[in-house]
Amino acid sequence: MATITVLGAGMMGSALCVPLVDAGHDVRLVGTHFDGEIIESVTKTGVHPKLKLPLPSAIRPFFVEQLAEAMRGVDAVGIGVSSAGVRWAGQQLRPFVQPGLPIVMITKGLELAGGHLDVLPDVLAQELGSQGEPSIAPVAVAGPCIAGELARRVETCVVFTGRETQALEELATLCQTRYYHVWTSPDVVGIESCAALKNAYAMGIGFAAGLHEAAGGAPGSVALHNYEAAVFAQAVREMQRIVMLLGGNPASAAGLAGVGDLNVTCNGGRTGRFGRQLGLGIGVKRAIEAMQGATLECLEILDVMRQALHVYEARRVLGSDELPLLRHLMAVALDDKPIAMPFSDFFSGRS
Amino acid sequence: MATITVLGAGMMGSALCVPLVDAGHDVRLVGTHFDGEIIESVTKTGVHPKLKLPLPSAIRPFFVEQLAEAMRGVDAVGIGVSSAGVRWAGQQLRPFVQPGLPIVMITKGLELAGGHLDVLPDVLAQELGSQGEPSIAPVAVAGPCIAGELARRVETCVVFTGRETQALEELATLCQTRYYHVWTSPDVVGIESCAALKNAYAMGIGFAAGLHEAAGGAPGSVALHNYEAAVFAQAVREMQRIVMLLGGNPASAAGLAGVGDLNVTCNGGRTGRFGRQLGLGIGVKRAIEAMQGATLECLEILDVMRQALHVYEARRVLGSDELPLLRHLMAVALDDKPIAMPFSDFFSGRS
Repeated sequence: MATITVLGAGMMGSALCVPLVDAGHDVRLVGTHFDGEIIESVTKTGVHPKLKLPLPSAIRPFFVEQLAEAMRGVDAVGIGVSSAGVRWAGQQLRPFVQPGLPIVMITKGLELAGGHLDVLPDVLAQELGSQGEPSIAPVAVAGPCIAGELARRVETCVVFTGRETQALEELATLCQTRYYHVWTSPDVVGIESCAALKNAYAMGIGFAAGLHEAAGGAPGSVALHNYEAAVFAQAVREMQRIVMLLGGNPASAAGLAGVGDLNVTCNGGRTGRFGRQLGLGIGVKRAIEAMQGATLECLEILDVMRQALHVYEARRVLGSDELPLLRHLMAVALDDKPIAMPFSDFFSGRS
Repeated sequence: MATITVLGAGMMGSALCVPLVDAGHDVRLVGTHFDGEIIESVTKTGVHPKLKLPLPSAIRPFFVEQLAEAMRGVDAVGIGVSSAGVRWAGQQLRPFVQPGLPIVMITKGLELAGGHLDVLPDVLAQELGSQGEPSIAPVAVAGPCIAGELARRVETCVVFTGRETQALEELATLCQTRYYHVWTSPDVVGIESCAALKNAYAMGIGFAAGLHEAAGGAPGSVALHNYEAAVFAQAVREMQRIVMLLGGNPASAAGLAGVGDLNVTCNGGRTGRFGRQLGLGIGVKRAIEAMQGATLECLEILDVMRQALHVYEARRVLGSDELPLLRHLMAVALDDKPIAMPFSDFFSGRS
């Protein structure tokens, strides 16, 4: 049994606590300053208001002001903040983190800095004070995992990735349960790129449902499934290309973090639903409003990737005709252009 | 403009005629002896009773007895029979086929013969009298394509594959329209293996919907999407392994014929719905009955693969612990065993 503190009490951070408790650990869940109401609810009633279910009573809730108390004597740390909160989380935890303390993060994203894209475990390592030594090498979680399902103990397969093998294997062993299946991969860049990019691509796959509905079609076997499957296949191809560009292993795009997470995000994720709204043709502003304040990671990653494409094109390592799907997704979601999927440009444009 | 005769007036053979007519060709649709009612309906009313829509009036319907007439002066041939009918189709067409005549087939499957798995274009070539020369090298179509959608001119991306580049490129050009996007690949074995295997795997991905329903769950964002996405990712991995075993290019599993077709088959195909029935726990017999006579390619391919695994294991090119998902699908669908997805054995069993 280990003592594990998870910072970030949103849906995924809280859901991660469920297998941790089931694995027999002493689990402390610390809300950020955005999570005050959640921690209050969990403290008073046991119910997580966003997951809409009672958390196991063994999970101990803490407010952000109690972080020091929650960090006392921990054997491992989990980070469940949003991508915008990763640097903040690193700064908060820095006083409590000694080299060798295993850290696992579920936050996904890419950050453009100094002319290249960084994956979030590396961003977090910087904030935690790592000088590039392997002493602080956060482990990241990727793969298909709807938080509401994990919290309900649905069978879930994920991949942990990290730059230090010992911490990686240690955390995988700590988190494993009979329903939370954990594999490990050393391909931090490939796994984390896919984890971030899949949100953008799932949005594009979601267009089809909205286009079909807007044309008066009913859900069913005959809809625009051919359209969405073609976009799915091109998405995998573009993820492979971007992973290669960033120096990762393109094979990761065909695994849990790529095709697996893309599949789940289309079927159960917010991003697919946002794509459907865009497919309805109501414009970006109304599509965002229809999502009622849900975090739209797809817009964040599209914005980062647009800047990154300029950088990589200027360095002549990426052609301006590459990644036609990603470029169209940017035009639709960032510039409010109408949807006109560039199928003929897919798969190197040989069609 | 070319004259193209399609043999097989089921849903997919007939749907293929739509882009062919739209591309400006003279198109003749010949029913097999199973398609008498379809040809009668198309002749009298124009409506295809299975596609449930009128075919373009330029498509000329023929009964099987009129095959010789339909084959007069053709520039290319399409084959849209079921996998069980491929040898029959080859025998019927043999008197009319000269070396160099482009032939495109949409039939998918694998056949075990002489200790190895053959893809159907090679089986067809034998029946057409090819002596292994490239003079008769049928082209096969793979990729995500629901027939009812293609017939309604939904944007569709497919990949044509064949052993003779000239016929391959010629057919791709003949069939291309503004909504039917055709790419080509020389990887006949990889593409066709995926096209056949995806039916088995889509069945397994479908289990999750039935399991969720049987447990009282409603469709929605929180269901068993984590389960189905993990099975999806493992399916891609196993398709890659089988493609390698057969000497194809595993990269094809990450493209239209692999992830693309797997995606569409889950969302719009019969096989996914059959998997859902099995997930309900009603047993194979009742699950088959619930499909009301629909062709279940998944059972055919599982049966072939079971025999093939014995052969490849005996030759020690495949371990008995490999392909755990495929083996479980066989146990459930062929032996009526209860579903107990072997997640821990996925991804080389490192979890």
